[in-house]
Amino acid sequence: MTDFDPPHPLVRRLVAEALAEDFGTLGDITSIACVGEDQTAVAAFVSREEGVLAGTALASETYRQLDANIAVKWSAHDGDAVDPGMELGQLSGSLRTILAGERTALNFLCHCSGVATLTRRYVRAARGNASILDTRKTIPGLRGVQKAAVRAGGGFNHRESLADAVLIKDNHLALIGLQRAVEQARARWPGRMVEVECESLDQVAEARAAGVDRILLDNMTPDDVRRAVALVEGTAKIEISGGITLETVGAYAEAGADFISVGALTHSVRALDIGLDIL
Amino acid sequence: MTDFDPPHPLVRRLVAEALAEDFGTLGDITSIACVGEDQTAVAAFVSREEGVLAGTALASETYRQLDANIAVKWSAHDGDAVDPGMELGQLSGSLRTILAGERTALNFLCHCSGVATLTRRYVRAARGNASILDTRKTIPGLRGVQKAAVRAGGGFNHRESLADAVLIKDNHLALIGLQRAVEQARARWPGRMVEVECESLDQVAEARAAGVDRILLDNMTPDDVRRAVALVEGTAKIEISGGITLETVGAYAEAGADFISVGALTHSVRALDIGLDIL
Amino acid sequence: MTDFDPPHPLVRRLVAEALAEDFGTLGDITSIACVGEDQTAVAAFVSREEGVLAGTALASETYRQLDANIAVKWSAHDGDAVDPGMELGQLSGSLRTILAGERTALNFLCHCSGVATLTRRYVRAARGNASILDTRKTIPGLRGVQKAAVRAGGGFNHRESLADAVLIKDNHLALIGLQRAVEQARARWPGRMVEVECESLDQVAEARAAGVDRILLDNMTPDDVRRAVALVEGTAKIEISGGITLETVGAYAEAGADFISVGALTHSVRALDIGLDIL
Amino acid sequence: MTDFDPPHPLVRRLVAEALAEDFGTLGDITSIACVGEDQTAVAAFVSREEGVLAGTALASETYRQLDANIAVKWSAHDGDAVDPGMELGQLSGSLRTILAGERTALNFLCHCSGVATLTRRYVRAARGNASILDTRKTIPGLRGVQKAAVRAGGGFNHRESLADAVLIKDNHLALIGLQRAVEQARARWPGRMVEVECESLDQVAEARAAGVDRILLDNMTPDDVRRAVALVEGTAKIEISGGITLETVGAYAEAGADFISVGALTHSVRALDIGLDIL
Amino acid sequence: MTDFDPPHPLVRRLVAEALAEDFGTLGDITSIACVGEDQTAVAAFVSREEGVLAGTALASETYRQLDANIAVKWSAHDGDAVDPGMELGQLSGSLRTILAGERTALNFLCHCSGVATLTRRYVRAARGNASILDTRKTIPGLRGVQKAAVRAGGGFNHRESLADAVLIKDNHLALIGLQRAVEQARARWPGRMVEVECESLDQVAEARAAGVDRILLDNMTPDDVRRAVALVEGTAKIEISGGITLETVGAYAEAGADFISVGALTHSVRALDIGLDIL
Amino acid sequence: MTDFDPPHPLVRRLVAEALAEDFGTLGDITSIACVGEDQTAVAAFVSREEGVLAGTALASETYRQLDANIAVKWSAHDGDAVDPGMELGQLSGSLRTILAGERTALNFLCHCSGVATLTRRYVRAARGNASILDTRKTIPGLRGVQKAAVRAGGGFNHRESLADAVLIKDNHLALIGLQRAVEQARARWPGRMVEVECESLDQVAEARAAGVDRILLDNMTPDDVRRAVALVEGTAKIEISGGITLETVGAYAEAGADFISVGALTHSVRALDIGLDIL
Repeated sequence: MTDFDPPHPLVRRLVAEALAEDFGTLGDITSIACVGEDQTAVAAFVSREEGVLAGTALASETYRQLDANIAVKWSAHDGDAVDPGMELGQLSGSLRTILAGERTALNFLCHCSGVATLTRRYVRAARGNASILDTRKTIPGLRGVQKAAVRAGGGFNHRESLADAVLIKDNHLALIGLQRAVEQARARWPGRMVEVECESLDQVAEARAAGVDRILLDNMTPDDVRRAVALVEGTAKIEISGGITLETVGAYAEAGADFISVGALTHSVRALDIGLDIL
Repeated sequence: MTDFDPPHPLVRRLVAEALAEDFGTLGDITSIACVGEDQTAVAAFVSREEGVLAGTALASETYRQLDANIAVKWSAHDGDAVDPGMELGQLSGSLRTILAGERTALNFLCHCSGVATLTRRYVRAARGNASILDTRKTIPGLRGVQKAAVRAGGGFNHRESLADAVLIKDNHLALIGLQRAVEQARARWPGRMVEVECESLDQVAEARAAGVDRILLDNMTPDDVRRAVALVEGTAKIEISGGITLETVGAYAEAGADFISVGALTHSVRALDIGLDIL
Repeated sequence: MTDFDPPHPLVRRLVAEALAEDFGTLGDITSIACVGEDQTAVAAFVSREEGVLAGTALASETYRQLDANIAVKWSAHDGDAVDPGMELGQLSGSLRTILAGERTALNFLCHCSGVATLTRRYVRAARGNASILDTRKTIPGLRGVQKAAVRAGGGFNHRESLADAVLIKDNHLALIGLQRAVEQARARWPGRMVEVECESLDQVAEARAAGVDRILLDNMTPDDVRRAVALVEGTAKIEISGGITLETVGAYAEAGADFISVGALTHSVRALDIGLDIL
Repeated sequence: MTDFDPPHPLVRRLVAEALAEDFGTLGDITSIACVGEDQTAVAAFVSREEGVLAGTALASETYRQLDANIAVKWSAHDGDAVDPGMELGQLSGSLRTILAGERTALNFLCHCSGVATLTRRYVRAARGNASILDTRKTIPGLRGVQKAAVRAGGGFNHRESLADAVLIKDNHLALIGLQRAVEQARARWPGRMVEVECESLDQVAEARAAGVDRILLDNMTPDDVRRAVALVEGTAKIEISGGITLETVGAYAEAGADFISVGALTHSVRALDIGLDIL
Repeated sequence: MTDFDPPHPLVRRLVAEALAEDFGTLGDITSIACVGEDQTAVAAFVSREEGVLAGTALASETYRQLDANIAVKWSAHDGDAVDPGMELGQLSGSLRTILAGERTALNFLCHCSGVATLTRRYVRAARGNASILDTRKTIPGLRGVQKAAVRAGGGFNHRESLADAVLIKDNHLALIGLQRAVEQARARWPGRMVEVECESLDQVAEARAAGVDRILLDNMTPDDVRRAVALVEGTAKIEISGGITLETVGAYAEAGADFISVGALTHSVRALDIGLDIL
Repeated sequence: MTDFDPPHPLVRRLVAEALAEDFGTLGDITSIACVGEDQTAVAAFVSREEGVLAGTALASETYRQLDANIAVKWSAHDGDAVDPGMELGQLSGSLRTILAGERTALNFLCHCSGVATLTRRYVRAARGNASILDTRKTIPGLRGVQKAAVRAGGGFNHRESLADAVLIKDNHLALIGLQRAVEQARARWPGRMVEVECESLDQVAEARAAGVDRILLDNMTPDDVRRAVALVEGTAKIEISGGITLETVGAYAEAGADFISVGALTHSVRALDIGLDIL
């Protein structure tokens, strides 16, 4: 279990489902036709481009479930920077099994590494002025896997589910107002962070007065953020969200926010190009 | 069941898993604290940008599983073009439940619509000169959902799994040669399409001679494709793949290929921005 | 819940698995291509041969899971005798869905009815002189479904699993002897039937002395059975098993056994020919 | 992974379900009462009759899941002919576990071998004049397992699900006619085999004209088949189905069909008699 | 969804598993033998003793899964005080189904109400001086259900899993010391409550200095607690745990702690006696 | 597989679910922050109080699923008496994994040992005059685990589900009377124990006349039991149930019953206090 591994019970279940999906009822019919049962091989995961590696636990588990006799050794690890042509790890064993598991292993590896790579770009663009957070805007079923990849890229994890922190938004505010919402949340769920989404400086002031833990500023300009930060005087953490891009994240981070949450880290991922080469 | 729906048994399972993931052990703690049990509302799915809608069956199923009393009505359907501000459908019922299911429903809807939107861009760029295909480079667990979204965008589905067509690649060729690979595949798996990946015009000629159903040209220039098409003389279908972008797809399509397969349709998706507005 | 229904939680799970298996990743591609989304139809399950109906609960559940708007009405019920051409029930609703579920519904219906039909043949051949029992020689995963079909055919259910009765066989006897085996079983598992498999009249006498509930005579002739029955004098029930056929079951039943258990009822089933006709 | 193994992810799931079904809540109560915890044994799978072996992967997985310390070695393999008294493989380890897993392992082994044996009989009766195909008339949940056994018997696999080939039948033809059905199927699902079920020579001619890949002749006489073959002149493959028996398959094969599909291979299986002998 | 309901996706899964467990392979054999298929009845859940009701959502779901035609109406709700003889709700429909689901529904209802009842006793004994918290010492699989019942009894939910708050214990402290542990936890997991278990006043002072959110005092006397509270001066919340009983909880609460966490609420539950009476 | 192990397929499933529940989406965030990836440790399960051990198979499986490299060795076994401070077994391996699995392993171990401990108290209080039985009043999902723990405590297992014995109760009697209920049950379910719940001596006489296997006396005094025993004259077994406590069980056992069934063994369990000490 590294810092960047998703929980193993989740890994086991996801890999089993992914293999079942790709094997269908008959399995790898091409390899059955073209590869001898006793053929063995050594193969290498090789990066085709620059980025950050993540998802190795899922690739390992793919082969562990298919055949305990496939040996998997990684020379690079989750969180490592990778370059074009760099060998990441090696497999050895039955060629049929290596080929049969290739797409499943790569689908996990390329997606996770895509998440980690994008995260690191945001982290770098923020230049240490703010921490980059993920969101609950994840691919259904893959949340734990994506959140581990965000960590591998240097980001941090926001809520894991609806159940682990209170996030009061416009619809809640419209019903009962900010102060009462915060009071009720504190009363019912002690020990949970209480965060309120604010759309104006007036709301920010109100949130400060209500003693929230964190204020979420949605779709504000960097100048607005600066004013909000000044207004709050460190009594609450400030999180910014809402369509922040690699181009704009630097300016927002400089404006003094503690956190910048970026849905795109997990909802709009470009897969990193990684291949499997038979040696 | 529309042409663009993923199979219902798959939809049911994925939605159940996604809801379990987002509800955790306690459920939507914010709404429990801030929304009365008897509060009801009407809400609308609204597109925030231009694109193609997909995934409505998953959003409907999300609310069906949470509460049979939530009414869901769609005014737009999978495959429809959507514009910023356009209302796509309405929910009515318990406000708590509407809020609790919002993220899960949107995660499916935005991802699927992202796939459909990207697909349609490729389809348009190909100007009818070639059909756009997806690949097996899908998000683990979501293949059926993504492939339905590709159809909604106007694309076509390549293999659903390792089991439904033979695709002979470099590793197979290196072992037993093209002709023997094709013969063995035909002999063992009658009725399956046999496709061979070719990296040179010599291989194309060999594939033609072996009587394959389809030839996959990987990483060739449009001119190479043109030569391959001429060489094959219609005796096999021609598919192109390998890093084809929205910029280059038009030229490839004009070169005479029947199919252009694009991994990015499913492995590098930008979510379409759709929101849920409480009315 | 009729007497012949398998437990509903089992039915729900098996139907979900069967539909997922038959729909794959894309669903019924033929109907998507050839049947309009709004097309509706009425269809009838029709028997093509003589036999006994079973499995209607599974066919109903198949359509319930696919589409709650498909109406299913049965005119015949589990346990009913059916004749060639007889209409068993009707479906009405979306033609796409009717066709998509057809094979799954029929696979259950034809298999279960095959079990029930074979069971009734044994029951009739035994002419009331002995009860026909099933065994644990069932199709993996379908035990509850097959045992319900045995009841529909007029048979009775032997053990449902390793856990609900003690059956001492040759391997147990070789270890610790009959008397000690019976004592230990009685001591550890009060309230369970204790049955011993006997291969000779001496063993039968020993089993009687040990006070077993039932004696299983394996591979004996009808005359041996008669002698065993006389020896036991009603102090234990007598069950016969071992390759008993429709030809021999009558003679065995007349020999005075209480039960005749027939593995073939569930391990060697000929499907009953039932079709679905679009009206 | 041999040519005759079902996909391992499927094997793992089916064995887990089968063991759960047979162990119930308490497990093997007879062995708990009668066999010491430390007792070990060697046991042999032995065929009681002539046939073809299949399903060894499932029997191995049964013991692997119960206890990693049970050693399983096969002396015969899927696809091998077996004779009465022939030893197929050996188990060694805890006697309790060997007995507890016996029925589950044998239920898989006897069923699969039954499928393989029946398939080989059809294959032999066809005398090489036509290939024997399975169908989707399978036992729910066991399709992949049964299709692997068909391969072990020398048969070939038809569609694995509704999703991997187009099969246009009477109900589709009645709606939109043969030519339009074929065109729509080709248009929507490129790369899939398109097969049409024909009930008359006129339809066969129409199917040829429409350029289908395969023609399915249902319930025709051998002479009809001969005429259809002549009519088609090799422009499409010919498949025959519909109640073809071991007695009639030879005549049909001689009539010139490419394929003969036999539902009975999987829907009406007689289990092969295999036992487990404690040595 | 009431405040006291466990998440519905969890309820659905648990009820399905519980029914499968109790129905086995054959279902309710007693009712099949003794109750006519068409027999209907009205039945009432009745409390046999004083306590607090919880778990109604699970009892409702039990009957919903068995038969959509069983009507369930509750006259009491989760969190309500109940007395001996009080009717809690009514069922009407098929008598067979009512009896078949009785034990499953009651097992949930009696267990949940037991949790709620014990919680309320602790809450009352604390006389409002401290909030009562649950722990992760729950029955495996039932955590969400038990935590909902704790809420119904007036208690509050501590961590739902290892993932939603940081709780630094002796083993972590031994490795890297309190200050570094807190710093590393804050750095890696922003937005999570950081709590430290302290065994001495010196540690409490150190925890205060490190700026933790909450201090867990394990196995201290009320006087120790009083000193710790004084030492902390409101800069962190104080939680007490460790074998606190109904007899001692009052004294601990008076000592000034904010929270008292009680493993017994979920690990040592006495079921509340509730029955189902056929009217 | 010891006499006291729950079935392994059940153990595997329950542990997987329990780990998924406790790991959530992120896993053990505290250990990730505070424990180095390469840190190893030896830890010991230690009893904090007197009782009977059970559930070791579940604790072992917890670590087996998390990491095959964690070595688990037990020095005490299910059914053993344990004392405060006694070491029960040792773990060695990755400290992160040891800590991450601690709560799940202990939740199983403490609950099962609680069941075994309570059972042994009843067994001792009955002084060998009657056998102690469990019931179907179990924690949903844990029945097999609890019933194994009852065996470890010296008790015996009553019905495992609705499917393995007939138990005719007041509701059945009210419908069709005792004699007819017994006849119908015998007729439909041969080989199952038939037990009738009796509320008066008249009913006992009627049950004896009907030839039941066992009579369940509910809520009778020891004197009533004595009279019932005399009346039955050994023609049926006698079971007592209904609120029998550790104080009263001795008197009931002396009254001559064969069995005393105690719902509290599984529905009202106090967890045994067992801890995990890092050495």
